[in-house]
Amino acid sequence: MAHILIINPNSSLACSAGIAAAVAPFRWPGGPSLEVATLEEGPPAIYSWRDWHGVVEPLCRRVESHPADAYVIACASDPGLAAVRGATARPVFGAFRSAAAAAAARADRFGVVAIVDASKDRHLAALRDVGLEGRLAAEVALNVTMEVLLEPDAARCRLVAAARATVEQGAKAVILGCTGMARHRAWVEKAVGVPVIEPCQAAVALALGVVLGTD
Amino acid sequence: MAHILIINPNSSLACSAGIAAAVAPFRWPGGPSLEVATLEEGPPAIYSWRDWHGVVEPLCRRVESHPADAYVIACASDPGLAAVRGATARPVFGAFRSAAAAAAARADRFGVVAIVDASKDRHLAALRDVGLEGRLAAEVALNVTMEVLLEPDAARCRLVAAARATVEQGAKAVILGCTGMARHRAWVEKAVGVPVIEPCQAAVALALGVVLGTD
Amino acid sequence: MAHILIINPNSSLACSAGIAAAVAPFRWPGGPSLEVATLEEGPPAIYSWRDWHGVVEPLCRRVESHPADAYVIACASDPGLAAVRGATARPVFGAFRSAAAAAAARADRFGVVAIVDASKDRHLAALRDVGLEGRLAAEVALNVTMEVLLEPDAARCRLVAAARATVEQGAKAVILGCTGMARHRAWVEKAVGVPVIEPCQAAVALALGVVLGTD
Amino acid sequence: MAHILIINPNSSLACSAGIAAAVAPFRWPGGPSLEVATLEEGPPAIYSWRDWHGVVEPLCRRVESHPADAYVIACASDPGLAAVRGATARPVFGAFRSAAAAAAARADRFGVVAIVDASKDRHLAALRDVGLEGRLAAEVALNVTMEVLLEPDAARCRLVAAARATVEQGAKAVILGCTGMARHRAWVEKAVGVPVIEPCQAAVALALGVVLGTD
Amino acid sequence: MAHILIINPNSSLACSAGIAAAVAPFRWPGGPSLEVATLEEGPPAIYSWRDWHGVVEPLCRRVESHPADAYVIACASDPGLAAVRGATARPVFGAFRSAAAAAAARADRFGVVAIVDASKDRHLAALRDVGLEGRLAAEVALNVTMEVLLEPDAARCRLVAAARATVEQGAKAVILGCTGMARHRAWVEKAVGVPVIEPCQAAVALALGVVLGTD
Amino acid sequence: MAHILIINPNSSLACSAGIAAAVAPFRWPGGPSLEVATLEEGPPAIYSWRDWHGVVEPLCRRVESHPADAYVIACASDPGLAAVRGATARPVFGAFRSAAAAAAARADRFGVVAIVDASKDRHLAALRDVGLEGRLAAEVALNVTMEVLLEPDAARCRLVAAARATVEQGAKAVILGCTGMARHRAWVEKAVGVPVIEPCQAAVALALGVVLGTD
Repeated sequence: MAHILIINPNSSLACSAGIAAAVAPFRWPGGPSLEVATLEEGPPAIYSWRDWHGVVEPLCRRVESHPADAYVIACASDPGLAAVRGATARPVFGAFRSAAAAAAARADRFGVVAIVDASKDRHLAALRDVGLEGRLAAEVALNVTMEVLLEPDAARCRLVAAARATVEQGAKAVILGCTGMARHRAWVEKAVGVPVIEPCQAAVALALGVVLGTD
Repeated sequence: MAHILIINPNSSLACSAGIAAAVAPFRWPGGPSLEVATLEEGPPAIYSWRDWHGVVEPLCRRVESHPADAYVIACASDPGLAAVRGATARPVFGAFRSAAAAAAARADRFGVVAIVDASKDRHLAALRDVGLEGRLAAEVALNVTMEVLLEPDAARCRLVAAARATVEQGAKAVILGCTGMARHRAWVEKAVGVPVIEPCQAAVALALGVVLGTD
Repeated sequence: MAHILIINPNSSLACSAGIAAAVAPFRWPGGPSLEVATLEEGPPAIYSWRDWHGVVEPLCRRVESHPADAYVIACASDPGLAAVRGATARPVFGAFRSAAAAAAARADRFGVVAIVDASKDRHLAALRDVGLEGRLAAEVALNVTMEVLLEPDAARCRLVAAARATVEQGAKAVILGCTGMARHRAWVEKAVGVPVIEPCQAAVALALGVVLGTD
Repeated sequence: MAHILIINPNSSLACSAGIAAAVAPFRWPGGPSLEVATLEEGPPAIYSWRDWHGVVEPLCRRVESHPADAYVIACASDPGLAAVRGATARPVFGAFRSAAAAAAARADRFGVVAIVDASKDRHLAALRDVGLEGRLAAEVALNVTMEVLLEPDAARCRLVAAARATVEQGAKAVILGCTGMARHRAWVEKAVGVPVIEPCQAAVALALGVVLGTD
Repeated sequence: MAHILIINPNSSLACSAGIAAAVAPFRWPGGPSLEVATLEEGPPAIYSWRDWHGVVEPLCRRVESHPADAYVIACASDPGLAAVRGATARPVFGAFRSAAAAAAARADRFGVVAIVDASKDRHLAALRDVGLEGRLAAEVALNVTMEVLLEPDAARCRLVAAARATVEQGAKAVILGCTGMARHRAWVEKAVGVPVIEPCQAAVALALGVVLGTD
Repeated sequence: MAHILIINPNSSLACSAGIAAAVAPFRWPGGPSLEVATLEEGPPAIYSWRDWHGVVEPLCRRVESHPADAYVIACASDPGLAAVRGATARPVFGAFRSAAAAAAARADRFGVVAIVDASKDRHLAALRDVGLEGRLAAEVALNVTMEVLLEPDAARCRLVAAARATVEQGAKAVILGCTGMARHRAWVEKAVGVPVIEPCQAAVALALGVVLGTD
């Protein structure tokens, strides 16, 4: 039975719980196992480029020491994707690039909601890397902490407002640009009326596609 | 329980059987139902632009009269995707765009193997539509009929040779550019050593991502 | 003497009359004959993608059964251009692509006025196909019916307002994005002060260029 | 009756005669007058960037002192197009940009045959200016003098070989990248089997489109 | 000892004095000599395309008759760069392209302040030529004369307002798009808070890089 | 007196010595001080993405604890440029982006010589980041170790062959894509006949431009 290892590169257990809840519908009896691991060495959240670089080596080591059929880097800024790919022969999916690919398959242009303004550069770099920067309609940041984001309601209205702002600038789909937003996907989608894509779900769908489709 | 309707827009039952075999691993007890339907009004295969336009109206009618939670157009030239999307409020996935999105999430540049040279223009148009034409390393056509393609072995060597040719021109992943090639995916992947993507599997993975991730 | 067949793929005789009036100045004694034909099988106007796909097969048949030296598809969404080109060895000009080419030859960026919002996607697809999407300054839709458009005055003010809106967003030339607007070209040009391009005229000019220049 | 002034910016009368022959089919009794003028101040041919800059001021003065309804700069490197446009309120067509627009309206990718290697940069700059550099399949230079080019047969075989070379690299249409090649258009087209575009004809067709379509 | 010839292609001695002041900090005892020359044949300022073309031949002659180790064309519209490069085997730096390169090395997107609206096209052409047009956040023109620009204070506030306007549209660095603005660099930088790049300084830095780094 | 800190992020003293030799001509009495520092925490060379990520945090700390007027990251893969920029308010130049900017200012298309194939992805990412990926004619890797590269002659012939290979594919300038190649610049330039750009020199020239031009 295939095993997919989903690594949250920040140390927030609450964030990992949100990720686990988001991917729970992708589990079924006899299906591939979906393990959500927390990188204890990571920071509480990835706010800065230094946070981003700092998790790469522990991520690589985790992958090297934990064999799986496929890996998901469960952070919407895809830290060290190329490096992690070099640490294993198995497929590695970055949550953000997976979300961008799903968005491109569903809509002409898409929006992104970021946790902080500093995330925008990382998202833009990832979009340039996959060739989709031209399809970004707009990105709007909440500028809140991970703690606020993980509270049940605190960030909801701001999330919806940010998603709507991207729709007003032409987005036909919206990517939740931080895994801490995972619990709010359905709620935001209902509120804004266009597909809302949660990166961990997008990556798990692609990973399932590979592990199921292989044989 | 969610229902995904996968419509083969050509009339070849053998082709539909290949598609059903390709998506079989994506079924599980209690999981979303995956129905593969054959468009009897369609041509034996979509070789030309006229074939391509001709299936759009029957596709739209099929979708209108067959409610589902998500639809897959199971043809690697995505006939009438925008038109079909206009015929339903539910998500519709084009097999080729889904494969291109999956390829972009896994590799910097990818190759495509086409059934006939005439398919290349349709693939290029689809790539331009999603913004990924710059990531196409090369496309190579087999120039065989659907019948030859569907024989167990007749096209295998040519398929591998074509996939290899795209790899030699820089492809780090290969898309099988006709659903008639579905049975050969694993075989070709083993032979060429890079991920080989079957479009119906790619579309079903994205469709599963939506129907599972929604709630 | 060369014969250019201009096919209006909608069934509106009033629209065909407008096209004939627009191309009338391109006729002269002894010059190529310009025949404007109406596709009776077509819809009253091409509002949707289904309308668009639906006229392709009749267009191909018309071309196959009516030999000419060059053909013009007289609809500003270029339905089935690749398919029609496959139905004849003679040159086939799409009205919209011809207008876009003329606009690119005259101005750095151009605007488009659409009959309905749904036309925008078709125009964008055509621009991506010819590589000129980066030169589209803005597109504005009137969201009126063909009947309203064909009345002498009903749509004029809206047409001018829409054209002006694209100029304010950087357009240095404006394309009339529906053949039903043909009668208003000179009027709009005078009102907005930049070149206003009527697609049937643009296509006929290119077709004349071929049939006159060939010897 | 409309008057179109076609200015050959080099001083070669033989070149002007070739241009006149190329545009002759575009004349008819009662039609717009097509005057081919030779810029005596120009060099024998435009081989270098200095030649190119040097004709701009005389071109502007010619336009200022010779009113016309439309102007064509009859040189396939479009010298000083922006400057000349600043010298008149009437439309000015660059022969090369007109040819590129016509090529884009007819084919996905096109080739160019240049008189000398030094012309390639000017053509590339013009293509970048109109946004079509991505559609250039290949450019091949003959590296001959204008005198050789204007002889009846001397350059024909080389012209055909160069055009073919661009077709082998993906061109579906070929632009003759020097007005000195004008007499050979039909011959080359017959030999290579794809549309061959003569820039002065392309520009005159666009100019006719404007002067005829205006009223 | 290396010699860098910096040619101001307009005839304004006040402008040359501003250039000399701007590059003065790049001189040191024993370092490369930096000579600022004024092109007496040039116009008072380069406002139009005709001005721009008109200085090319005198620039080429100046370069041919004045040997140096490197040349700088000290005008922020890079008149005739390709032509001047053809007149010498030594490196020639265009001030604007140098500034754009420096801006790209320092910031994701940059703004430009132009002396007059007519300069914008020349700047855009230069950016397209080096491939950086996608990084232009905004360009704002002062629409003043060179005389006003060269007064100590007259244009300062407008300069700052224009630079700020580009920053508000996303610029992370600002290029002073006319050499007549050279004296205001530090002042504007302090006022707007992002790097402000003076093209002659940028070109001299690149030229120094070559002449110092060679051996 | 301004101070420019040039940090070699690998631990090779021989490599630092090569960098110091390359930038030596940029020193003069009374000029800005150029300090070349070696990051002892770094690996012998940056061969992999993990090496690349691993030096970012020590680089940031070095910058935070060593005030300077400008910084150069003296590695031709620009490790952590965004992160380091976040660690200081002073300008930080990446050697590779500086070289790419200098190349764009001097030539239409350029080549890169890499130490190992694995470097190509990092260079491509940097080029995409600055928008210049379209100007890369070709990149060729030597696939040697840093030790071999630093020997006086061992890699020279291969370096010249690799540079020539990029020129044959259209490069008009060549970037030495590893600081270990610094000593060979003049030699390679002489051999291949186009400008050869050493990234540390390019970055120091830009840094000098800032520190000299500021006041």
